[in-house]
Amino acid sequence: MFKDNEHQPEGFQLPLKEALDNLKYNAEGLVPAIAQQHDTGEVLMMAWMNRDAIEETLATGRVCYFSRSRGKLWRKGESSGQMQMLKALRIDCDADTLLVSVDQTGPACHTGRRDCFYWKADTASVTIDKTPIIDPKELYKK
Amino acid sequence: MFKDNEHQPEGFQLPLKEALDNLKYNAEGLVPAIAQQHDTGEVLMMAWMNRDAIEETLATGRVCYFSRSRGKLWRKGESSGQMQMLKALRIDCDADTLLVSVDQTGPACHTGRRDCFYWKADTASVTIDKTPIIDPKELYKK
Repeated sequence: MFKDNEHQPEGFQLPLKEALDNLKYNAEGLVPAIAQQHDTGEVLMMAWMNRDAIEETLATGRVCYFSRSRGKLWRKGESSGQMQMLKALRIDCDADTLLVSVDQTGPACHTGRRDCFYWKADTASVTIDKTPIIDPKELYKK
Repeated sequence: MFKDNEHQPEGFQLPLKEALDNLKYNAEGLVPAIAQQHDTGEVLMMAWMNRDAIEETLATGRVCYFSRSRGKLWRKGESSGQMQMLKALRIDCDADTLLVSVDQTGPACHTGRRDCFYWKADTASVTIDKTPIIDPKELYKK
């Protein structure tokens, strides 16, 4: 469905239900979702959504993932307090990846760093180049 | 290894080989790689890399993915001419996702659009809201 309509012009529309029926979920029923801060463009993290998580995110305006480790819906911030509010949810050309534009309160990363991508690689090594903005011990106290 | 060192300070370093040995590749030996335009912050696409693709990307400075459909290394732009030059390669806290900062020539998407995330979802529908910057027929002529 996505492929069949990839050359349609701007403004072309399909029902959400049909779109969600045609996402390319993996064997676990999940698609990767990239979270990007809406105003600064920072890529904060990547997590996974199932169909329920996508529908809840669109319905509530608060970003909900599917936690693979806990095997259930994960409303971002429910343990850390660091919520993500939805600005826009996008689907890519192959219908197998989501880009979620969000407004992230505080750190997105469980280490207390603003984003999860704090290891920078070069041809010889990987180096931590970001510092926590909140002590992670404080993050999961609540 | 990544987890054990997540509270290390900025500047903490590990050898690249050890880092690549400890990435959490999926069953096909791949990790997702998010490509972001280095100066504008646009999220352009998501693709997959195996260890060879990561090593080649770091060594050559030209972004190389692993094509799941073709089952081989895919030097971005080899058929379309629309290359990605590497600015930085980052690994996330869980060591299962890469963020690749790139300089993308022209469109990243095979449809001729600048990026792949041109379907915007709301509670009722999905809508195309981006127009190709190059006719896709021109893109694969070369």
